[in-house]
This record gives sequence, structure tokens and C-alpha cells, in this order.
Amino acid sequence: MAHPGTHSPRLWVWLLLVVVSRTVEPVCGVWPLPQQIQQSPDRYSLSPQLFSFTYGKDSAAQTGCSVLDAAFKRYFSIIFPDFTKGPENGLRYWRESKPFVLSVSVKSRGCDGYPDEDSDESYNLSVSDGQAVLRSVTVWGSLRGLESFSQLVYQDDYGSYFLNKTEIVDFPRFAFRGLLLDTSRHYLPLHAILKTLDAMAYSKFNVFHWHIVDDPSFPYQSRTFPDLSSKGAFHPFTHIYTQSDVMRVIEHARMRGIRVVPEFDSPGHTQSWGKGQPDLLTPCYKGDVPSGSFGPVDPTVDTTYKFMERLLKEVKYVFPDSYVHLGGDEVSFACWQSNPNVRKFMGKMGFGKDFTKLESFYMESIMNMTAALNKTSIVWQDVFDYHERPRSKYVVEVWKQGCYLCEMRRVTKAGLKVILAAPFYLDLPIPTHSWARYYIIRPLAFRGQNMSAKH
Amino acid sequence: MAHPGTHSPRLWVWLLLVVVSRTVEPVCGVWPLPQQIQQSPDRYSLSPQLFSFTYGKDSAAQTGCSVLDAAFKRYFSIIFPDFTKGPENGLRYWRESKPFVLSVSVKSRGCDGYPDEDSDESYNLSVSDGQAVLRSVTVWGSLRGLESFSQLVYQDDYGSYFLNKTEIVDFPRFAFRGLLLDTSRHYLPLHAILKTLDAMAYSKFNVFHWHIVDDPSFPYQSRTFPDLSSKGAFHPFTHIYTQSDVMRVIEHARMRGIRVVPEFDSPGHTQSWGKGQPDLLTPCYKGDVPSGSFGPVDPTVDTTYKFMERLLKEVKYVFPDSYVHLGGDEVSFACWQSNPNVRKFMGKMGFGKDFTKLESFYMESIMNMTAALNKTSIVWQDVFDYHERPRSKYVVEVWKQGCYLCEMRRVTKAGLKVILAAPFYLDLPIPTHSWARYYIIRPLAFRGQNMSAKH
Repeated sequence: MAHPGTHSPRLWVWLLLVVVSRTVEPVCGVWPLPQQIQQSPDRYSLSPQLFSFTYGKDSAAQTGCSVLDAAFKRYFSIIFPDFTKGPENGLRYWRESKPFVLSVSVKSRGCDGYPDEDSDESYNLSVSDGQAVLRSVTVWGSLRGLESFSQLVYQDDYGSYFLNKTEIVDFPRFAFRGLLLDTSRHYLPLHAILKTLDAMAYSKFNVFHWHIVDDPSFPYQSRTFPDLSSKGAFHPFTHIYTQSDVMRVIEHARMRGIRVVPEFDSPGHTQSWGKGQPDLLTPCYKGDVPSGSFGPVDPTVDTTYKFMERLLKEVKYVFPDSYVHLGGDEVSFACWQSNPNVRKFMGKMGFGKDFTKLESFYMESIMNMTAALNKTSIVWQDVFDYHERPRSKYVVEVWKQGCYLCEMRRVTKAGLKVILAAPFYLDLPIPTHSWARYYIIRPLAFRGQNMSAKH
Repeated sequence: MAHPGTHSPRLWVWLLLVVVSRTVEPVCGVWPLPQQIQQSPDRYSLSPQLFSFTYGKDSAAQTGCSVLDAAFKRYFSIIFPDFTKGPENGLRYWRESKPFVLSVSVKSRGCDGYPDEDSDESYNLSVSDGQAVLRSVTVWGSLRGLESFSQLVYQDDYGSYFLNKTEIVDFPRFAFRGLLLDTSRHYLPLHAILKTLDAMAYSKFNVFHWHIVDDPSFPYQSRTFPDLSSKGAFHPFTHIYTQSDVMRVIEHARMRGIRVVPEFDSPGHTQSWGKGQPDLLTPCYKGDVPSGSFGPVDPTVDTTYKFMERLLKEVKYVFPDSYVHLGGDEVSFACWQSNPNVRKFMGKMGFGKDFTKLESFYMESIMNMTAALNKTSIVWQDVFDYHERPRSKYVVEVWKQGCYLCEMRRVTKAGLKVILAAPFYLDLPIPTHSWARYYIIRPLAFRGQNMSAKH
């Protein structure tokens, strides 16, 4: 707005603010913003040598609680980043000689379980002179509180540690706070996934949506169908996730209160599946003869359903989470339409020329299998759009740009839970590379939203 | 030997050897030297793009075998170290277009178990044109064979991979090939232990002897006695091994066919234990009054045995190996001697002034506890030396310099298994820093050695 060559008055205001802010006590931000946070300018110094975690006397979890024991070890280094760098760093803190104890109390134990849909992540954190008290219902709530506590601590120019008198009452606004990694289009080595889980914990994300396979590659090494990765991965030995890799991911996630929801997307997005499972995909036709290329999973043959049932059974045992993502997005009907067997099946089933009915038929079948395995299905919105009156309960993930809030409204109106992904594609910071838009999204700004929408 | 200022004739011989060796086919060494190895100058080229591992049709282990699936992934990158560095490296190998398959066949499955004392580690490896066949009784044998195979592969100056026609018949000379890490005198972070396990696998070591606690610190975080580490570790949060750390170590070791044998050394070497377990150590006296310092574990009170029983019970459940090392070395008797209660106990037990009898009494007690938990005790040689007619079976570890072969003879003569550590202290390359001496040790060069000595 300012004319070029002149000093904008705004610049002066900005400089003034910089000067003023130097005199204000540094009160550190906790991210995401807690439901309630009160901070005072009273600040306490922290000495790494005299800081300790402890379990409250009334806590159901005590030493031996795998999740919290490991969290104490992890957060100590996060809170005091230069503590282990050398003795000269250590000596500095002896000036401050007051002990500080962070006491953690958990209502119900559950240290050996997995976080899930209904896990209570609420916590209260009270920081006063020489001590902090963290209370939660579950160990997952304690993890969130430890993260908040670590964000309260800051260092001055001399490296001394401080934090301010603080009261926090917090619980998540949404029970499902997911991050999707696509390990099919680009294989991610194990350590990259583990590092991403670390980063998720810093922002209190709680679901790792593992879009593990897709058209380009099938890196999941199946016990039941080893050919899927040996023929469908970018490389059969280096670009795969072995069973022990998957276990590492699940355990690393568990330690951070993060669910691992795998996605086995079908019937589309399955080109890589076809390499290791020969009769799974629909052969496309050019006129009366097979063209040599393949389309989506063939939903007209028994072998497909037998295969999916065995695959889903394996998935059930490998991934402890109660959710499985079944995909169902972007199915191209051209190949189905070209195939005489599929057309015959359409006629037999009375689907006419409506291929959305064929996709619905397939998706309902595998959702039923999933329900029989006591798992909840998530599907992309296409499945709901084709068939708005669902016979069973499933979770809809809204991914299409456009009026995603309209879709949210339709899904919740139909009594289904919904996950909103559409406005959060991190690879699409359009129209310009503005990150601000991710922060002004209001997922609940649609009419008729109610409690169920909060999932 | 050569006179200064003149050229030694030996130098010429050496130079000649260098020239000659350039014209010889590089036949690579496998380490440790296999029992039988035949190599021919016929060499085959290997292309990473066309190399694969496969399970033999008759193999009891197939895809889904956690140990071998993970080993295939790991060894691929070890065999082809620059494969994943970039596309230009990848393209180079397309010149060589012949597939090569390494087929692995295992007689008995056992992919989910742990290696142990009786694990058969033998394997046969046959490398010919376009294929190699690896046969073993157990998956642990396959791991040794994969290591040998990886050592056969070499690169020429252009980076192409080769290996020679080879036949190997191999089995270990000793069933127990251990490496000891002391994590008490110097805390080792988890990743340093994991890296050491990697290195052990390269040399086919199969026992990680985890000297986890000692006088200086107690980094093991006990579920039953959390104070042991919270008060006895160098730092209660950063310098500890949580239960999940220990599980990581055990699983990392299992994947490499390595046993984890923990050592909880007592009654000496326990200063750090005393910090978290107040009445465990013997109070030393100066005349008639306690001096304020403490000696070894107090073997005269019931509470000591109750404590040791609960600790050993925990150790049994945390560490799957059938061996537990109970220490028993270097017990100083001065403190016991100074303590009037200990002297009274000696009188009551009829031990006279022989404190070796008191130590034997203590060690027998905790060895009996260990036996009752279905574990085999290992002890340092002191325990055997004090009491040469053992009432129970235990394994003796010989650590004292001097005539260690005499000791080997005595122990095997008494019908006990023995581990030889004495000449292998890596921190003692005396008299000069000569590593050669580690390679000329003949552990079996004593009279009367028999099969049992091979343990």
C-alpha cells in the first residue's frame, strides 16, 4: 500500500513493536492453542540437574508404564536440548539450585494398549513454583500434557531455562487429527516415517493415515501374498516394508499416542497390485479383444472377493487400530465398460449402464468383510456420493475440492462420521503459495453440524 | 634388521609382491574363515537390478519369516552399497544383464523364536553361474550364510559387482561367541548398542553379554524396583534403559541371531545398587561404629534374598535368553570383616574366618533361585575358585590373566562349561599395542579338553 520511495508509517509501527516487545516478559506459546490457558509473568528457573518427572501417588500408572517411562526419557532431552552436549553446559546450571518436579497422574492405566477412536486425550496442567502437576484420564492425555509442558520451557540469552506460572485445561477439538503419507508414489525409508511420527507428536496429531499402496508401487510385504511386493514394489528388497518394519512404525506411533490407520485403496488405484496377483484386475478390451492393459479390480469374479477377504484378514492382525481405510476413490469406468464379462455381469445384476452401482456393489462387499472382522471402514467420499443411503455404518473422508462443507453436511445428515481432508492438501498451497489458508479453515462451518461431525 | 641407510632386500620382495598381486584374480576372504571353503578363479558378474533372494521350494521358512525377510532387505543394501545412491549408479549395471538368484532353504522354521545355546548355526553355501544355494538347519544358520555371501561380493574399479564360484561348508567352532559391553562405567546410548550389534553380526558373534550395571551406575530401569535407576543411574531420565529400550535391543539382536545375556553382578560391584535399595549393602564399620560407607551386598539378612528373588524374576521375564550372568567377581572382604553382624553370622554358620565360604553361600543361594526360574547361571571364575566342588551346574567365565588355560582345565575337569574371556580384553592390548596377540590365542590348548569345553 505504501508508495515506493517513501517510508510507510506502518514500518514505524512495526519497529516500535519490536522495541516494545523486548521489554515484555517472554510468555511462550503452546501449539495447538489449548482450550484454556492462563499464564502470568511470574517466571521460574529450571535446572536440568534438579528437574525430575515423577508419578503422582494416586496415579494408576507407575514406573513400568512403557509409554510414560519412555516419554519421560524422550521429553527430558526435548525440554533441555543442550543438557547432554558437554560438561561446560552442565556446570552453568548449578547457579540455579532449586528443584523442580513434574508430577504425572493418570486415572486409568492402559500403558500396554493402543490409542483408538474413543481415547480420552484431555489433560490439566498446573505449573507453579518448584512443581507442575499434570493430570489426565489416560496415558495418551499425559503425552499431550508433556508436549505442552515442553513447549512452555524457554531459554534466555545465557542458555538458562525458564517457564512461567501457567494453568492449562485442554482437550482436543477433533478426535481424529490425521496426517497422510503416501508411500506408494514415493517410497519413504523407515527412518523418514519414524521422524514424521515425531513431528506429528509435536503438533498433537493422533492418526497416521498410511496410504501404503497405490498404482505406482506396493511396498507392503504381505505374509499371505508375498508376490504383491516382490513384483509390485519399486524394488522387491530395498523398497518394501517388512512385517518388522510395520511393527516398528506401529510401536513408535503407540509410544506417541498415534494410531496407525492403513489404507488399502481399491478397486481403483491398484495397478501395482495386478503385478503380483494376476487375475485381480479387469482386463481392458479394444473392441472384441483384450488390449493388454488392465483397469480397476474386477468386481465380477469370486476370486477377487476371496483375495480381498484374505488380505483384509491379514491387515486385521497386523494393524491393531479399529479403523481400516478401504479407499474407493477415482474409479475410472472406461475399462469396466470395455469388458464384455463386466457388461454381462451388469445386465445380470440389473445395474443397467450405471457403473456407480457396480462400484457400490464391490465396496459394500468389502465393507461387510471389514465389519465382520470387527473393524470400521473409512472410504473416500466417492463411495458415499454414489450411494447416499448407506446400509452400514462407515466413515466418509471428504477429499474433493469445491464445496466440501456441502459434502460434510450431506454425510453428517446421513448419520455417518466424516473426516475432512479436502482443504488440507499440503501439496496444493494454491492459488499462491500461501500457508495462511490452512489456518483459516472452519471445518464445522456448515448448517446442521452436530457432535457426530466432530469426528 | 636392515642397516640404516641401505635398502633392505625385504623391501624389494615386498614391492615384487605388490606387482604380482595386481595380476592375480581378486578372490575375497570370508571372515571368520569358514570350516571349508573352495573358490575358483571363475567369476560371475552381479547386477543389482537382476539380483534376488528367494526361499527354496523345500524351505520350512517362506515369506512372512520375520528374521529372513528383514535380513534380505538388510543384506541387499550391504551387498550393493551404492545401489540406492542415484540413478547414474543404477544405469551402469544394465550392461550386465544376467539374473542371479540366491535361494535360501531352512529345515526348521522357528522364525519367531530366539537364538539360544543349542541353536544350530551351520550352513552350506554353493555359488555358481547365475545362482547360489544356501542351506541351513535354522534361520540363524541362514543369517551366517547371508553374511558370508555378502563378503564374497566385490567391486572392480568401475563399480561393477562380481563374485567367484565358491563352495562353503561352515559351522562355528564355538557355540558361545560373545562381546561384552559395560554400560555402567560409561552409559552407551541406545543407537550405539544397536550399531555394535550390527558390527557383531558382520563377524558372526552370537552373544551380546550386557554388563548392564556395576558400581558406577545402574542404568537398567526396573519395573519392580524403579529406585535402582532413578537413584543409581548417572541420570534418572536420560542415562537409563527403559523397558522399551531393552526390548529394542533384544529384537535388534534377535534379527541378527544374537542372544542377549544380561549380567547383574553381585555381591560386589554393587555400589550403585545401594542408592536405590537402602538396606541391601553391608554397612562397613570403623571399630564399633558404622563408618558411613558400604561394602558388598549383605549376605546375612533375609531381605537381601527376597530382593534378589524379585529382581531375578523380573530379569527372567524381560530377557528371553536361557542364561543369566550373576557376576560374583572381585568381592572385597574387608567391609564384611568389619561388620559385627556379619562376623556373628559367620560364627553361626561355622564359616570360621573364611569369607570365601560366605561368598559361596550367597552365590549358591542366588544360583538356586536362578535354576528355579529355569535359567542357567554364568558366574565369573572367582565363584568356582572358592568352591571347586559345585553342587549345581553353572557356567564359569574365566577372566583372570595368568594361566587361564590351567583354569580352563580345572573347570572342565569339574564337569562345568566354561567361557574364556581372560586373553580377550580389548582394552588391554599389552605389552605393546599389538593386535596380533588376539589372533594367536588357542583357547583349547590345555590337556583334557573335550566337547564340553567347546562351550
